[in-house]
Amino acid sequence: MSKPVTPSDPSIFYSCHIFVCCNRRPDGHRRGSCAAKGSEGLRDYMKARMKELQVPQSRVNSAGCMERCEFGPAMVIYPEGVWYRPATTEDVEEIIQTHILGGGRVARLMLTENDVLPPKA
Amino acid sequence: MSKPVTPSDPSIFYSCHIFVCCNRRPDGHRRGSCAAKGSEGLRDYMKARMKELQVPQSRVNSAGCMERCEFGPAMVIYPEGVWYRPATTEDVEEIIQTHILGGGRVARLMLTENDVLPPKA
Repeated sequence: MSKPVTPSDPSIFYSCHIFVCCNRRPDGHRRGSCAAKGSEGLRDYMKARMKELQVPQSRVNSAGCMERCEFGPAMVIYPEGVWYRPATTEDVEEIIQTHILGGGRVARLMLTENDVLPPKA
Repeated sequence: MSKPVTPSDPSIFYSCHIFVCCNRRPDGHRRGSCAAKGSEGLRDYMKARMKELQVPQSRVNSAGCMERCEFGPAMVIYPEGVWYRPATTEDVEEIIQTHILGGGRVARLMLTENDVLPPKA
């Protein structure tokens, strides 16, 4: 639906804009939630490291539920739209080093097209 | 820094992923905040309308402070990375109709490269 960047658009404001789901559901909820899986601590680590590394034109943001809870903790990096599910701060560090600084991908932590919810019953 | 979409990346999960800043600072804060400018109501309107219109592969999310408070209420649409500052639900409706459904741009509501904060004193 949305049109890709057009020549008349302003240049991209953050060349690395990361959104970390920090939605929290009550304990025991059938869907779980990214915050219950530790996403807030991962976000804090990522924010601190990105600041230390002074990564230009970058921003780490908390976000509400991005509807991939079952595959979380979920984060997405725009504009490329690549999703990850880091479980530890070591995973986050690998994403920073390999994807953000290195321009590569951390295949073992990426969400794929197959990571979708089953249709509602 | 980040690499654009590569052939090996999964296809984009949300072709229209909208983040609305819902950060709220205390009343009277020198920087103001998007929530103090009504962003939560604009987000609610957008969520409801996108659902009514059944826009495929789309998601409206709340986000924390995206550092463009002075130019808010701020929202950004990815993957194209176009920012808007809607003031009213009519503005949001125009963004939905023109940008999201129509593939165009609402130039009068867009943030530009010039909408940046002055360096810290």
